[in-house]
Amino acid sequence: MAPQSWLPIPAKSPFSLANIPFGIITTPEAPEDPHPAVAIGDHALDLYVFDKNDGFSTLGCIQPHRSVFAQPTLNAFAALPSQIRHYVRTYLQSIFTHTLGSKATLKDNLELQKAALFPLKDVKTHMPMQIGDYTDFYAGSNHAENVSVMFNNSMPPNYTHLPVGYHGRASSVVVSGTPIRRPWGQYLSDPAAEPKVPTFAPCRLFDYELEMGAFVCRENKFGEPIPIADGQAESHIFGVVLMNDWSARDIQGWEMLPLGPFNSKNLGTTISPWIVTIEALEPFLTEGLRNYSQVQRYLDQGKEKNVYDIRLEVDITPKESGKTKTVSNSNAKHLLWSFPQMMAHHTITGCPMRVGDLIGSGTISGDRPGSEGCLLEQSKGGKVAVKLENGEERKFLEDGDTVTFRGVAGDEDGALVGFGECVGTVQPALKF
Amino acid sequence: MAPQSWLPIPAKSPFSLANIPFGIITTPEAPEDPHPAVAIGDHALDLYVFDKNDGFSTLGCIQPHRSVFAQPTLNAFAALPSQIRHYVRTYLQSIFTHTLGSKATLKDNLELQKAALFPLKDVKTHMPMQIGDYTDFYAGSNHAENVSVMFNNSMPPNYTHLPVGYHGRASSVVVSGTPIRRPWGQYLSDPAAEPKVPTFAPCRLFDYELEMGAFVCRENKFGEPIPIADGQAESHIFGVVLMNDWSARDIQGWEMLPLGPFNSKNLGTTISPWIVTIEALEPFLTEGLRNYSQVQRYLDQGKEKNVYDIRLEVDITPKESGKTKTVSNSNAKHLLWSFPQMMAHHTITGCPMRVGDLIGSGTISGDRPGSEGCLLEQSKGGKVAVKLENGEERKFLEDGDTVTFRGVAGDEDGALVGFGECVGTVQPALKF
Ligand SMILES: [Ca+2]
Ligand SMILES: [Ca+2]
Ligand SMILES: [Mg+2]
Ligand SMILES: [Mg+2]
Ligand code: NI
Repeated sequence: MAPQSWLPIPAKSPFSLANIPFGIITTPEAPEDPHPAVAIGDHALDLYVFDKNDGFSTLGCIQPHRSVFAQPTLNAFAALPSQIRHYVRTYLQSIFTHTLGSKATLKDNLELQKAALFPLKDVKTHMPMQIGDYTDFYAGSNHAENVSVMFNNSMPPNYTHLPVGYHGRASSVVVSGTPIRRPWGQYLSDPAAEPKVPTFAPCRLFDYELEMGAFVCRENKFGEPIPIADGQAESHIFGVVLMNDWSARDIQGWEMLPLGPFNSKNLGTTISPWIVTIEALEPFLTEGLRNYSQVQRYLDQGKEKNVYDIRLEVDITPKESGKTKTVSNSNAKHLLWSFPQMMAHHTITGCPMRVGDLIGSGTISGDRPGSEGCLLEQSKGGKVAVKLENGEERKFLEDGDTVTFRGVAGDEDGALVGFGECVGTVQPALKF
Repeated sequence: MAPQSWLPIPAKSPFSLANIPFGIITTPEAPEDPHPAVAIGDHALDLYVFDKNDGFSTLGCIQPHRSVFAQPTLNAFAALPSQIRHYVRTYLQSIFTHTLGSKATLKDNLELQKAALFPLKDVKTHMPMQIGDYTDFYAGSNHAENVSVMFNNSMPPNYTHLPVGYHGRASSVVVSGTPIRRPWGQYLSDPAAEPKVPTFAPCRLFDYELEMGAFVCRENKFGEPIPIADGQAESHIFGVVLMNDWSARDIQGWEMLPLGPFNSKNLGTTISPWIVTIEALEPFLTEGLRNYSQVQRYLDQGKEKNVYDIRLEVDITPKESGKTKTVSNSNAKHLLWSFPQMMAHHTITGCPMRVGDLIGSGTISGDRPGSEGCLLEQSKGGKVAVKLENGEERKFLEDGDTVTFRGVAGDEDGALVGFGECVGTVQPALKF
């Protein structure tokens, strides 16, 4: 049975004692002052306030590093040695536990509870990390196969030999809740017509992409690859978030040859606010999709269980009806390549990773109808409408649509390790 | 005739009084402490020391902003209103001029000269800006045409309608002089062979790309494009540098379908250390390559002269012989799209620019032999060797090769506006 907390934690909460995800919040007490925090049940613990009130005074190893809790991002915390992060997390678990070995620090200090513990509904979440560079991979092979079939292409011959990816736009990554404006751009109204003369207009084929993102916590030197052996690549990963790589399919189709997706992706990418540590996710490691190619040694992780069993859901809520429909159920395990493999590939040239860099998995689709990770797939390229509630349907997103991703690992009540929500609402295009 | 300085400035110096480029240096006096500086003739003026010694005391507008000279990058200086940057630059010109209106601040203060003015050969240059995001365009249409022909492709149909570009890797941008290690990677030893099974080995087709880079000095809000009209897009550009987008051609060939170049580019990109302001470059605005397509209104800059007449040279110096050969003479005007057009396109989706972002032009080739911007073109895909001195030749770069770019605008002695050098030496690949 999962350990119990003196703080009431709903049985179905994604933020059980087994989780302890990290984020950045502002509170009613300090609305202008972002602080590191952890989520627990329906609450957030403000780590800056907790620390200022000697909450960590009995945790020796953090003493020289307490300034990490006075930062407006988690970069400094993430950059700590993993042992110290481990001790902080288990210490935080212990102060919420009412069994043997629990610390009375917070439980018996009502004043500190009042100062540092806030209902989640009263806090505002912010970007958890300052992102240096953002890379998006394409490791969901069900997605890649569906898309290839749709455009009458065969799978790229490199696909099973390396994690295909492209550099993304770090400045356009935003936290859950940020409105996403339908972009303007160039595209072919009729891709088959000749000559190819583009239209300039608001995107018509606006889509989401269901992905996971991993945050980097350790640098490598310029010119020095990160080896995959012995968990080294894994040790560069702080934790994981849900990610919506909003995509303008018409703009993408026109722009992406020859140098890849560009404006179709830099209009915004949304991440969930709470970073779930890879320590919390470790019990949910599982096997990914089978790769029948022999992988090169720099990509050979030497273990089968290298992706996470995280149930993923996609909801669409149209503005007018307000009726939410879960349109897809997928799982984060539907990947051909793991985050450590992506990291090893990304740096094999000596490309430097920095603390705060974000790596996206690529769209994660299951292998059956109702598990697609984007509307392009689910509507079969805009041919088949996806049913919503109230008789509504969608081929692509409409203005006012709210897209919500959820992800949770585990199935024991009181011990779920989840991400909360990754949410964005489509705003109408600007008028020009 | 160009204005004269009391400081001896060699007639052929790229850093004439007409230039005043900005950079970041460390000096023998403060080897650990990077300071903003300007280059003038054979000297650098340390702006931190100059300011600390009341060098700017008679320039009223900078008084509230003097902290910009105490930063280890130019981001804060670049973010100042352009009027203030203009006054700083003209003030610095005036203190070096010995005509009417000159300021005696530095000329008659030998102690200040000793403290703040250093021979360029005694200073170390550093990354001038902290780069948030880096984007590389493909606006050199001679290059694009040469490459398309080489691979039996027609030009991409979007090429004349939008500035094709891709997101690059900001963390891998380094300052001139940084050694560049030959990367490992996957590629097809024989691209025609079936089945396509890649080799994992050090890059064999290692190349440079001759480009210009532009630094961003003004943000736009998330979701709000930067308009091109009335010089608005231009006002977001601080200045320009030379850029070497080192490229692993074999890795590129294998990886780039379907999502574009990735590891073939993130091994390192070198920039010249001195940012030449767009104010200094203004007299050299000229017409670029003719675009016969009607451009969309968001890309219509409304002026013909929108690229710079900057003579560009590429040298290769093999390690053993040490004999330098200038292998290419090009010009920065050989572009189909201007930096303001790239900026307008990049943000038409609402993609946010931040101060310090870097935009690359794409490889700049002329239209005749000996003006190619990379070895891939000049060696016709590795078929024709490029002659160096001493009987040596190259199809692609070898270990120990030093590649040097130079760029200069103007032809009046004493009034040249140049970039100095953008240099990198190829290091042997790591052993695995
Ligand atoms: Ca994606
Ligand atoms: Ca390039
Ligand atoms: Mg995106
Ligand atoms: Mg590069
Ligand atoms: Ni604070």
